[in-house]
Amino acid sequence: MITKAELKKRQDQAYGFLERASLVITAAEKEKIEIADFGLSEFEKTGLGVLVYVNTLRCCAKELAMWPRQTCPEHRHPTIGGVPGKEETFRCRWGKVYLYVEGARAAKPACRPPAGRENTYSVWHEIELNPGDQYTIVPDTLHWFQAGDQGAVISEFSTHSTDENDFFTDHSIGRATKIVEDGK
Amino acid sequence: MITKAELKKRQDQAYGFLERASLVITAAEKEKIEIADFGLSEFEKTGLGVLVYVNTLRCCAKELAMWPRQTCPEHRHPTIGGVPGKEETFRCRWGKVYLYVEGARAAKPACRPPAGRENTYSVWHEIELNPGDQYTIVPDTLHWFQAGDQGAVISEFSTHSTDENDFFTDHSIGRATKIVEDGK
Repeated sequence: MITKAELKKRQDQAYGFLERASLVITAAEKEKIEIADFGLSEFEKTGLGVLVYVNTLRCCAKELAMWPRQTCPEHRHPTIGGVPGKEETFRCRWGKVYLYVEGARAAKPACRPPAGRENTYSVWHEIELNPGDQYTIVPDTLHWFQAGDQGAVISEFSTHSTDENDFFTDHSIGRATKIVEDGK
Repeated sequence: MITKAELKKRQDQAYGFLERASLVITAAEKEKIEIADFGLSEFEKTGLGVLVYVNTLRCCAKELAMWPRQTCPEHRHPTIGGVPGKEETFRCRWGKVYLYVEGARAAKPACRPPAGRENTYSVWHEIELNPGDQYTIVPDTLHWFQAGDQGAVISEFSTHSTDENDFFTDHSIGRATKIVEDGK
């Protein structure tokens, strides 16, 4: 849950991260940046900023802005009714991001899950993405990611995006951010 | 047709355009940049540089580098065997690009087709894209585009890319660039 004033502040900050990646964003797009707190109301720990460039029935492109050490929580994109789940490629543009997927567990992971939510993180195969690095996640694969110490900007290229179908390991999570009037 | 030495020179130049757009490209990616001359052997007039980030059966992302006033010739992505043709979104990152699609003819188009090939250009609805602007082209729609006076860098987000299916208005065109040994 965030207030409208906080939404505006967070959009300004997200725009700042995109600027650091030298991405040109229009004023109208800036106001469309989604501030996703996954319903946990601890945005700088669990959340991300999302600018959707295009999302048709066939394909989708977004920029993701992440605050230092912010985490996008563990989830997967399920196959539903024979339609393959979302396939996504993450390309780091600025900063650093650690991506965790199913596979051999990292001996010394570079990240810790947000405090108090450790038991909702189960996959520990670590992929470090620096600017120019990318990784493709196939459907139905559990994954989560955390920005490095400076934050991160990530381009996401994917099939059609339907956040409402995402399956989160943490059952406390609701994908939609609740926005309330200021002062509530 | 280009020589291997010219290919290397053009890849260096394409990399220069991507750098001007502040895009971070790895050394391995630089060597993968496709220099497409559409078989016409007049690259600075008709052609473009293409870096494919990802091209799966479901979606694709590329960066396109264009030299000043260079043209990507008129073509469409046909629906074949019931499979919808390629859908693509062009987002200008640097420079300027004029996109021409089916629709009302521009009164005073900003571009001319490459000299001698005017009769292979038939659509004249003009869309000017500056950094931060984008446009989505639906399948089966004729389109062509030309960079402005400084050149252009364009991100392309699309469905699966199968260049071999493209239908070009100019029947002299072959999509593949022939690369020959130096000195041939």
